[in-house]
Amino acid sequence: MSAMHRTKDDLIDPGRVAPETRRLCIHTATTRPLPLEIAVDEYVRAGVSGITVWRDALAGRNVRAAGERIRKAGLEIVSLCRGGFFVNADEEERIVAIEENRAVVREAAELGAPLVVLVCGADPAVPLPVARDQIRSGIEAVLPLAAELGVKLAIEPLHPMYADSRSAITDLATANRMCEEIDSPALGVAVDVYHLWFDPSLEAEIDRAGERILAFHVCDWRTPTRDLLTDRGLMGEGCIDIPEIRGWVEAAGFGGFIEVEIFSTEYWALEQRSYINRIVGAYEAHV
Amino acid sequence: MSAMHRTKDDLIDPGRVAPETRRLCIHTATTRPLPLEIAVDEYVRAGVSGITVWRDALAGRNVRAAGERIRKAGLEIVSLCRGGFFVNADEEERIVAIEENRAVVREAAELGAPLVVLVCGADPAVPLPVARDQIRSGIEAVLPLAAELGVKLAIEPLHPMYADSRSAITDLATANRMCEEIDSPALGVAVDVYHLWFDPSLEAEIDRAGERILAFHVCDWRTPTRDLLTDRGLMGEGCIDIPEIRGWVEAAGFGGFIEVEIFSTEYWALEQRSYINRIVGAYEAHV
Repeated sequence: MSAMHRTKDDLIDPGRVAPETRRLCIHTATTRPLPLEIAVDEYVRAGVSGITVWRDALAGRNVRAAGERIRKAGLEIVSLCRGGFFVNADEEERIVAIEENRAVVREAAELGAPLVVLVCGADPAVPLPVARDQIRSGIEAVLPLAAELGVKLAIEPLHPMYADSRSAITDLATANRMCEEIDSPALGVAVDVYHLWFDPSLEAEIDRAGERILAFHVCDWRTPTRDLLTDRGLMGEGCIDIPEIRGWVEAAGFGGFIEVEIFSTEYWALEQRSYINRIVGAYEAHV
Repeated sequence: MSAMHRTKDDLIDPGRVAPETRRLCIHTATTRPLPLEIAVDEYVRAGVSGITVWRDALAGRNVRAAGERIRKAGLEIVSLCRGGFFVNADEEERIVAIEENRAVVREAAELGAPLVVLVCGADPAVPLPVARDQIRSGIEAVLPLAAELGVKLAIEPLHPMYADSRSAITDLATANRMCEEIDSPALGVAVDVYHLWFDPSLEAEIDRAGERILAFHVCDWRTPTRDLLTDRGLMGEGCIDIPEIRGWVEAAGFGGFIEVEIFSTEYWALEQRSYINRIVGAYEAHV
């Protein structure tokens, strides 16, 4: 496993063009039917180098031991998904959400994940400007603990079709502005091609984000898309120009993992070993 | 019918706050099960003042006679839906689309519709910047005929979830920029709350559009939204602050019809007369 011998400097090499699996990371949610331990072994077998762990994959496990098991197998833990959901019409629930986010940050530290990705939250009963204020307050409340524990937080702008109930932050411009205003080295953004590919200002906003880009997620937009949540495509199956966007994030200085995050009832129904092989092939051909 | 005695000046009254059905227009696609003639009679019965005609509602009819029938019943024809779909990976198909749009403009003139709404088009095989160039070329090719026949064209930015196959123009900023560049009195924009409600720059872009706002469409965003195309909500059923956006378009100078455009398999399955009554009630309470 080359991942065993990888150093941070190896990862940052903007001159390289050919995709290499040493930068390939898979989200456990992508292979949701697999228990964490089997996912880890299958990722390693397929030559995958990184893993982003979803919290449901840790249920019933000792988090610290799970982290050690993952590293021992040869995978780098890229991030923990997910924190956020700071928005609530009910003030008490809003405070509970902040506490929950502190627990997520502690869990990331125990796991050994350097990053928590934030799906910032939205509530159909909360107007978007108020929701964005609640998100900002929530992040500011959690940041001190994150900084103390060495865990970063990434605001992930979501597709506008989730503006009602998942994220009041639906473009990179808003995420960038919030990062600039809060101005903490522990806060940045996650760029997911699925959520942002259509935005005419994307290249400029990626450039503006620069070193604040903490994560880069890939999948594809299928035509037709049959479900708002669980019909994402494998890279190359849809209309997103992933290499172009990858070029932009690398030009902005990002040299970290390229994370495959696909929610798909169709793919979850497949035999997962061959699906992981397809992911690796799609990564090599279309990222 | 007050609509019979309405003048243009009556419509422009920004000081008025209470919704009145003399500004209420329904799209034939909203009550899709009804043949045009029955839709017209039912709208009049319910006190609706305007109608936007979808082209499928004209199938098999003499267009000029249909227009006369509508006006005689007491409805104002607000627009013809829809032109556009200018984007195509196949150059010959692209030229066919331009010819088709000229036919739509002629149809609008025959019907007596002052406006054609453009769903500008997208093709998963065409990169978005190229698609936007094709849209601009297409509009420029159709504008002279539109100006000659006294028909205006409105670019309708669509929700980004349609960026793959329906519109490469997914925000009002891009529509405004295109209007400014083409700079024709026969070209403007259609503001549909469903497509734009989440955009943090919406108020500013509506102000920028100003007199170029040629149409204002309303419905609501349901939580959850169960289908990308046909699960729109009645006004008041979802999370869109329609009165706020209405305030913005009126502050920008718009005093035209407020058009109810709802695609919903759920509502199409209802008895349409009582559904139209519900539309009027939702308009009075939530617009």
